[in-house]
Amino acid sequence: MVAGGGAGARARGETGPALAVGRAGTAELRRHNRALVLRHIRAHGPCSRATVAAATGLAKAAVTGIVGELVEAGLLTETGTAPAAGRGRPGTLLRLADETAAALGVEVNVDYTAVVAVDLSGRPVFSEVLPPAGPAPARPYGVSPGGAAGRVRPGAVADLVRELAGRLRDEGRRLLGVALGVPGLVDTESGVVRDAPNLGWRDVPAARLVAGALGDGDVPVLVDNDANLAVLAEAAGGAARGARSAVYVTGTVGVGAGILMEGRIVRGVRGYAGEVGHMPIAGAEARCGCGRTGCWEAVVGLDSLMRRAAPDLPAPALPYRAKIEALVERARAGDGRVLAALDHHGRRLGRGAAVLVNLLNPEVLVLGGDFTDLAPWCLPPLRAELAAHVLAPALGGCAVRPSTLGPLAAAQGGAARQVDRAFAALHTAF
Amino acid sequence: MVAGGGAGARARGETGPALAVGRAGTAELRRHNRALVLRHIRAHGPCSRATVAAATGLAKAAVTGIVGELVEAGLLTETGTAPAAGRGRPGTLLRLADETAAALGVEVNVDYTAVVAVDLSGRPVFSEVLPPAGPAPARPYGVSPGGAAGRVRPGAVADLVRELAGRLRDEGRRLLGVALGVPGLVDTESGVVRDAPNLGWRDVPAARLVAGALGDGDVPVLVDNDANLAVLAEAAGGAARGARSAVYVTGTVGVGAGILMEGRIVRGVRGYAGEVGHMPIAGAEARCGCGRTGCWEAVVGLDSLMRRAAPDLPAPALPYRAKIEALVERARAGDGRVLAALDHHGRRLGRGAAVLVNLLNPEVLVLGGDFTDLAPWCLPPLRAELAAHVLAPALGGCAVRPSTLGPLAAAQGGAARQVDRAFAALHTAF
Repeated sequence: MVAGGGAGARARGETGPALAVGRAGTAELRRHNRALVLRHIRAHGPCSRATVAAATGLAKAAVTGIVGELVEAGLLTETGTAPAAGRGRPGTLLRLADETAAALGVEVNVDYTAVVAVDLSGRPVFSEVLPPAGPAPARPYGVSPGGAAGRVRPGAVADLVRELAGRLRDEGRRLLGVALGVPGLVDTESGVVRDAPNLGWRDVPAARLVAGALGDGDVPVLVDNDANLAVLAEAAGGAARGARSAVYVTGTVGVGAGILMEGRIVRGVRGYAGEVGHMPIAGAEARCGCGRTGCWEAVVGLDSLMRRAAPDLPAPALPYRAKIEALVERARAGDGRVLAALDHHGRRLGRGAAVLVNLLNPEVLVLGGDFTDLAPWCLPPLRAELAAHVLAPALGGCAVRPSTLGPLAAAQGGAARQVDRAFAALHTAF
Repeated sequence: MVAGGGAGARARGETGPALAVGRAGTAELRRHNRALVLRHIRAHGPCSRATVAAATGLAKAAVTGIVGELVEAGLLTETGTAPAAGRGRPGTLLRLADETAAALGVEVNVDYTAVVAVDLSGRPVFSEVLPPAGPAPARPYGVSPGGAAGRVRPGAVADLVRELAGRLRDEGRRLLGVALGVPGLVDTESGVVRDAPNLGWRDVPAARLVAGALGDGDVPVLVDNDANLAVLAEAAGGAARGARSAVYVTGTVGVGAGILMEGRIVRGVRGYAGEVGHMPIAGAEARCGCGRTGCWEAVVGLDSLMRRAAPDLPAPALPYRAKIEALVERARAGDGRVLAALDHHGRRLGRGAAVLVNLLNPEVLVLGGDFTDLAPWCLPPLRAELAAHVLAPALGGCAVRPSTLGPLAAAQGGAARQVDRAFAALHTAF
């Protein structure tokens, strides 16, 4: 379509690389080349400078310069020598400096707190599921005063982060960053939790509180919706491994979703995307804790399931795990009431899942939170409902899978994101 | 956080621009610089080579080379001279060659066919709403044989495109590309319409049919869901102008949506995203034309509205515009039954809209198709329903607006997309 002969040749003659770089071009190239080198060593290390040069097409002198920067920044380290390739000298091997840095992810939940620290390669340094952080006396839904107190105390979360940072420092690791995942609406720009009703948080400046507790303004702190962080982790190395489009649906007290489309989190204009819990898809008889009627959460939240499956249990008084374990135990024992309730639950889940699959055509739908443990019983009716209500043939290629990262997903995703950010920041830091 | 001193300085010394470019870097730079030049002239033309050089930071010789390529490819043209700036010579002005090329967009619909041709600047060459293309005898929903016939004949669409291409050729314009928008599931890679039930199309190789009719394998043909193309147009210059996140909901016989998030169409893994019509959010009593129950389309499609608002009219026998005009006329006249039905319709629309807004947090929700004409009566109840069912404060910043491009939106978006593609292809063509 386009004639490339004369004009193209003329342009090639006139605009050699040095000319075409221009002023802005130089810095951009530097970042680009640094990213090339890092990406190669992250993916293929340990490897020598010569290997990096061959794989990236960069000049050896350029690679040597970039590697020097990265070693000095504490992100690369030398590790023995490689056998000489062909006639060359033996090369020093390079790899990520996994012993000297770590990123921390924390999921704050009304039922538990999950913490994960990872090294530069994304391998866990530690990961734990702890009791909820400093629970304050329970209050009715949504009436907690702005930012002060609620079911989970923000100050207790900040204290926990400081304690974990100290643990990493004692191990000789630099803290690359902290990521907080919370079940609610988050202003990711400012790190303020706008509304996390089940935590009792309204307009809580979570990033500022954590940074204050750390007493180190240089450690970046990000706050995000828990399901957003979880879908990143599941797509990186969990139930949606390798998927570019995935939806993670998590259910505990509330129901939320993280949406990944073509490798990016769908956030919407103010970061509020993924509020599936309050999609008005149930009947008017479904009264939600938020005061509305018809919310999906009102019929697929754990409270609703407990009432139907095990009305004899004192659900409000039981800890989260105890409820799930009781249901799983009874289901395994063949309790007819529980099995019928889980079948009903699976169909109601499938109704909302069909909305998501019709609307977003994901490659994988991941069931997280308590849906993970209940998947053996809920998945068959859920799949049947999907088959009945999804327009695209063969569910549009969508696989439905329980989470493989379980309660650690959001914390893991947050920590990994801070590693990525540290690398990305490095690309622009010189 | 990162020490940039010694190592950074060393790297800067060792990796000058020429070195750092490497082999892969040259071609990439060339594309990048070509894009810079084109983007500037598209946005700010007419302008001189010197202005382009100053604005982009490129060397004047480089700009001259690139401009030469673009003039030769028929995309730029010279247009008079600019007054000398400072001590420089007067410069020849450059602008897009708007007289010599055009792209064509066609929306195929069961009720009408919309056609739009635009020049390189995106200005319309012509735009028309025509009767449906070669309607075949109506068949029951979904039983049309694979690709052969249905309510709209694919061959008639191909014939129409050939005719329009001839018209552009007669005006001395090169056809940059054709975009077809259809209400249904499209495999955008292959240009095959998988399922457009209201057209009666199943597995119709629409791109191949159109290319065949044109008899010119060099003209790119793309096929996409109509609402995907429409949301691009509305965000470029319609009701969602400037929005990076928008959802376009269109209703005629069926209901569909185009989803734009951070400037990109959300397609999902197989391009089936946006199937809002069959979200199971209505009650079991809502029987849909697709054979399912509970589909949103079953309660917000035009057929459902006509039954409730004007049961005296012979809806199935009336053309699309006649139905809408009858409703609008009666609503204006204060017909109580029609007004009550439109209020009810608005609330049902709002139910589904609340699902979309909770899930996607768009900046703008655009009502297209027949929703546009009915907006004066449907918008207030729709907004009330949104206020009642969206969790984010102030609807998460979402504005709800009727389409400003009307039935031309998808055709306009398709034509504009082919112009963008022609520019993008040029970036990589040398």
